[in-house]
Amino acid sequence: MHTRYDVVVVGAGIVGLSAAYHIKQTRPDASLLIIDRNAAVGQGDTAKSNAALRDTFTSTVNRTLARSTIDFYKHVQNELGFNLNLDMVGYLWLLSKRQAQELSTVEVEMQRQGTRFRTYDVDELEAMIPDLTLRPSSQQTKLMGLEDVEKGLFGIDCGTVAPELIARFYESELRKLGAEFQFHTEAKSLQLAARRSLGINGEPLVWQEKFFKQIETNRGPIPASTFVLSAGTRTPLLLDPVGVDCMIKPRKNQLFQVRAPSLQRLLNTKGFNEHDTIPFTILPNGQVYFRPVRRENSVWVGAVAGLGRPFALEEEPIAEEPYYTKQIYPVLSEYFPCFINLRPTNMWAGFYDVNSLDATPIIARIENCIITTGMSGSGIMKADAVGRIAAALLEGRDEATLFGNRKISTAQVGLVNRAVEPEKFVI
Amino acid sequence: MHTRYDVVVVGAGIVGLSAAYHIKQTRPDASLLIIDRNAAVGQGDTAKSNAALRDTFTSTVNRTLARSTIDFYKHVQNELGFNLNLDMVGYLWLLSKRQAQELSTVEVEMQRQGTRFRTYDVDELEAMIPDLTLRPSSQQTKLMGLEDVEKGLFGIDCGTVAPELIARFYESELRKLGAEFQFHTEAKSLQLAARRSLGINGEPLVWQEKFFKQIETNRGPIPASTFVLSAGTRTPLLLDPVGVDCMIKPRKNQLFQVRAPSLQRLLNTKGFNEHDTIPFTILPNGQVYFRPVRRENSVWVGAVAGLGRPFALEEEPIAEEPYYTKQIYPVLSEYFPCFINLRPTNMWAGFYDVNSLDATPIIARIENCIITTGMSGSGIMKADAVGRIAAALLEGRDEATLFGNRKISTAQVGLVNRAVEPEKFVI
Repeated sequence: MHTRYDVVVVGAGIVGLSAAYHIKQTRPDASLLIIDRNAAVGQGDTAKSNAALRDTFTSTVNRTLARSTIDFYKHVQNELGFNLNLDMVGYLWLLSKRQAQELSTVEVEMQRQGTRFRTYDVDELEAMIPDLTLRPSSQQTKLMGLEDVEKGLFGIDCGTVAPELIARFYESELRKLGAEFQFHTEAKSLQLAARRSLGINGEPLVWQEKFFKQIETNRGPIPASTFVLSAGTRTPLLLDPVGVDCMIKPRKNQLFQVRAPSLQRLLNTKGFNEHDTIPFTILPNGQVYFRPVRRENSVWVGAVAGLGRPFALEEEPIAEEPYYTKQIYPVLSEYFPCFINLRPTNMWAGFYDVNSLDATPIIARIENCIITTGMSGSGIMKADAVGRIAAALLEGRDEATLFGNRKISTAQVGLVNRAVEPEKFVI
Repeated sequence: MHTRYDVVVVGAGIVGLSAAYHIKQTRPDASLLIIDRNAAVGQGDTAKSNAALRDTFTSTVNRTLARSTIDFYKHVQNELGFNLNLDMVGYLWLLSKRQAQELSTVEVEMQRQGTRFRTYDVDELEAMIPDLTLRPSSQQTKLMGLEDVEKGLFGIDCGTVAPELIARFYESELRKLGAEFQFHTEAKSLQLAARRSLGINGEPLVWQEKFFKQIETNRGPIPASTFVLSAGTRTPLLLDPVGVDCMIKPRKNQLFQVRAPSLQRLLNTKGFNEHDTIPFTILPNGQVYFRPVRRENSVWVGAVAGLGRPFALEEEPIAEEPYYTKQIYPVLSEYFPCFINLRPTNMWAGFYDVNSLDATPIIARIENCIITTGMSGSGIMKADAVGRIAAALLEGRDEATLFGNRKISTAQVGLVNRAVEPEKFVI
């Protein structure tokens, strides 16, 4: 083990791995250590994700980050031959009349930008998805205020992936490049020092120029020239004590696996994609969505938490079954009666590092510390681009080159002079 | 006491008072209650402020908020005859060569915008401020990296005020208008309810539309039609549990009063203002500043905390004398030797609600809850404008009219579609 690394990356989730990989690509001779509190790569919130990918964003930044990352994953799977279980099943938004109207400008914008999508009318949806109830009409439905499905909006260059395989890809490449890993190592605090120490007690003082000297962990301090914080929702635990606001809050993300013979027809829905399965599907109400997982003959179901669900970090989050039975099931079973009486066969929970301002990653440099946070639930679909921007920031570059030779300003996604348009197409 | 108020304002600091005042101006018949955990108005962070005012901002939003508020305070003191101890002593930035260069574009911009300022060269400064050491040259100075003063930048329409008098003004007006006050009342949590309750346990559920029903306090729940959160750094304690990120962190603000015969000449510095006193002065290094308080024959000294000083809220903050002796004194005594050997005669501490993104207030509406936060240390100089915007939001208006008939878009300073330029002139 080195006594002092050139680069220490905190967090071996998909974002930290991507950052480390692109830093090692840029600086093959740099000594680089990745630490993580878990026992292996991708075991934190990366493993808890629904791992869906879409390029249907209206903001240029989001679209660029997602498209280049999706293209990179395609490249890894198709050209490098490293299987990522990348299935381009598409994203299907089932929209109410109200939502279709709200999204009409988004459609125009996506068309202009060359985002590939198509729409389905109710007759097409009815014919293609026999399991879908377009106009839920029970007494319950009325009381709940559920809306009729009026239209389907289908994102073509969207799909699902296995984040543990992407993590393994980056890890194996990093090991080839000589990067070191240290697991069961939890970052406890960042320690600043004065650039020109006067040996005064209490340094660094307000009037001294400062730099990040080392990171304290449960296994002792680790000094480095540069630190990369890719610790997801745990980032503020490191930055608040040194007075840096990385502008994120933790939001619990719960997923429920449902596996049952009654879901076979749904899983074998044809006509949307080459996998002959139902796309990743978003219901009109309740922020409920599901993801087909044909490999395990199951469906993963979730609901995006919003107003009323706390921002609060838990050490070892567990999924709450009532979140399925009370929040998800009443909506899901109305639109998709094939779920009636089904209960989860498995469930798990993680955390999103939510940037409430613009729901776009924050990639910033503060002295010799680079921060990647604010993935807001779209970390896997943007991770490769985020890692490349982190590597560009380490080089002090104003511009990063993403996969496919796309360029992006590094300042644009930082904390100072941030310039990100509000995203108009949220799930 | 009403069982249900039209409006409950949380926080009787200067911002909450201003919001309440402008809401009552707009809706004289509304029943309005202001609650505060302290025993009287303006006893929280409002009382701990350095209470300085400036209009020297480059961002249009900041300039508009500050100018209209300063003009309103002038109106209250000069036309309404309510003394606020408003002393337009000016702001004097003592700039190093480096800083003068950095701010050269700011000067051009301020000129264009009609912000009144003038500059002083070193000879003028030397003649006008005999207490100032323009070129600190001790061994200590070199080690500390302190820079020579190269130029003075003087903001004319700037000064100091007594926040407790502004608070008292708003309070007396509010009492005339029939607003109620309830002190020793601490907001504990906000309670959401479903707009259309189905009587299900655990409501409001994710798929239900929600509104804020009541606020739980140490003295029981208080229901209201609209809530206005003007709780400063305590706002996230109320909003995090309901999943709203108001994008602020608490930063400790410490002030030290120094009173000594050796400061008499400094306090009687002539030529800058009609009060024949030294302006509010900012030193080139260490983020150190001081404020003359001729009424008490003293100077208040502070240093803006930055990297290395934690974001952490304390229940009853107290000033730390080492912050003066180690962080402030070494810088202050080099530029102003009249402080040599002086120790604080009094000290106090409060908190800034810091918006790190753009250092500009956040005034947002979420359902029937209006949030005013992110004052970032300039709450007193922007409070009247913030209160008017809160009142406009309550009316559902897209535009607020500030004092002096200035218009401002309400969405611009909100959380969604926020459009605030980065401020280029920070203290």
